[in-house]
Amino acid sequence: MSLERASLNQYTTKPLSLIEAADACVRHGIPAIGVWRDKLAAVGLPTARRELAARDLRVSSVSRGGFFPGRDAATRRANREENLRAIEETAALGAQVLVLVCGPTLGTNIGDARAQIAEGIDVLVPHARAAGVLLGIEPLHPMLVAERSAVTTLAEANDLVARIGAQDVVGVVIDAYHVFWDARLEAELERASGTIFGYHVADWTTPHGAPDIAAARALMGEGYIDLATLGGWVTRAGYRGPVEVEVLNTRLWAGDQEQLLREVVTRFERYVAPSVLVSN
Amino acid sequence: MSLERASLNQYTTKPLSLIEAADACVRHGIPAIGVWRDKLAAVGLPTARRELAARDLRVSSVSRGGFFPGRDAATRRANREENLRAIEETAALGAQVLVLVCGPTLGTNIGDARAQIAEGIDVLVPHARAAGVLLGIEPLHPMLVAERSAVTTLAEANDLVARIGAQDVVGVVIDAYHVFWDARLEAELERASGTIFGYHVADWTTPHGAPDIAAARALMGEGYIDLATLGGWVTRAGYRGPVEVEVLNTRLWAGDQEQLLREVVTRFERYVAPSVLVSN
Repeated sequence: MSLERASLNQYTTKPLSLIEAADACVRHGIPAIGVWRDKLAAVGLPTARRELAARDLRVSSVSRGGFFPGRDAATRRANREENLRAIEETAALGAQVLVLVCGPTLGTNIGDARAQIAEGIDVLVPHARAAGVLLGIEPLHPMLVAERSAVTTLAEANDLVARIGAQDVVGVVIDAYHVFWDARLEAELERASGTIFGYHVADWTTPHGAPDIAAARALMGEGYIDLATLGGWVTRAGYRGPVEVEVLNTRLWAGDQEQLLREVVTRFERYVAPSVLVSN
Repeated sequence: MSLERASLNQYTTKPLSLIEAADACVRHGIPAIGVWRDKLAAVGLPTARRELAARDLRVSSVSRGGFFPGRDAATRRANREENLRAIEETAALGAQVLVLVCGPTLGTNIGDARAQIAEGIDVLVPHARAAGVLLGIEPLHPMLVAERSAVTTLAEANDLVARIGAQDVVGVVIDAYHVFWDARLEAELERASGTIFGYHVADWTTPHGAPDIAAARALMGEGYIDLATLGGWVTRAGYRGPVEVEVLNTRLWAGDQEQLLREVVTRFERYVAPSVLVSN
């Protein structure tokens, strides 16, 4: 099995700088990296461009745009400016996709948050199109609705994509960890065909959540997610792009990162690569 | 505002025995109680019947039936026997509804679990009908898919109800805590009209989950759930039955239960009762 489709989302190895993570990718034969903006800022855009190019590493995505909801117009305007900067950085890195984590509910008003998310994405469309950047709406697990994203299912993300009506620019990112539980997943993946802009893998273990539900993901094959079936559905829906390993886990961050990368590679080859093979 | 529709799910006051919880209901003017089978077993069915009748307390529901999936036929048979006993106990207590927590995924096979759940409920239908007991499928929050329930959305529960096709006996139980995040909730509540067999309230706070995601619920009004809107939708869908306060929370269990009950009453009157008022 091959690492051809593999990408390391750099938050899997959060203790490493962007350059260190890039070196690790080269060392372990991973041809692409998912970049986070805080890590990018730490090294600076010119250095990042130069160093990634020197290593011939592709950038599979930039995390993250989004966080559209705000309690007042000034906050929402600031959010928009931040998203425009994120689009520029994504283009400057030669990355195709800016991942949108759409932002949390505002108090009890999930409906308001959802309306502001739709409006927020809509405004970005011409800018993204001009920059040649795809905007990938990533539905997050419903347990994160109050803290991270009011967009909680692929159905809802697909509805948003249809409503915005700019499928050349606005699509979805599928993260196995966030969507695996959904009884309508297969049907919604089929519906998303042509607008899947990314596929992320991790696993889900129990007891879940401690100590931090936002950073309790497991390595592929450790838990309950049927990555073989899910990868098949994503592939059948026509997705042929990079597959990012994105395992946010406080325990793994505290451990040896070289050992972690060896595990990532072995588990990608075993649990992910066969499922995204395209038969001829 | 009134407590007319209120019920105390006894796991809100888990440290109390069934008799102690019943006394607390009387003391605080709550006319109904949601009984758990472990608490029932501790006091015994004959005593429970007599003591609840003596206090003129209605039993709004019995928790819980379900847990249908099993790795082999013998386990599934044992699960069925357990559910038949739960139906008998529900009837013996004069409770209308047995709450079904349908059971977790089996390893990575969510699909298998879902098929076994559908089959498991189907088999119970004639027994429930004969006993005059309603079976309420409660979709649980997707974060509990691997540990408690492969039925994670009201859409999925509604699909199950339609597929089983015994709407005089098999319907759904709506728990605000489990479903509030769902963008399709209003539409699915409308679809559930006529088969809503219960409504439970609690709240969702952040950071969520610690130390135990299964027992981290908050009191009504403390968090992110728009109970006013949700109660309105449930009422518009035709539900007129008891509204159970079900707040599973390890911190509250460790505190003073009388104080907790005073809070439950005050918050029910403020955040729940107005939303389930039926206008004439």
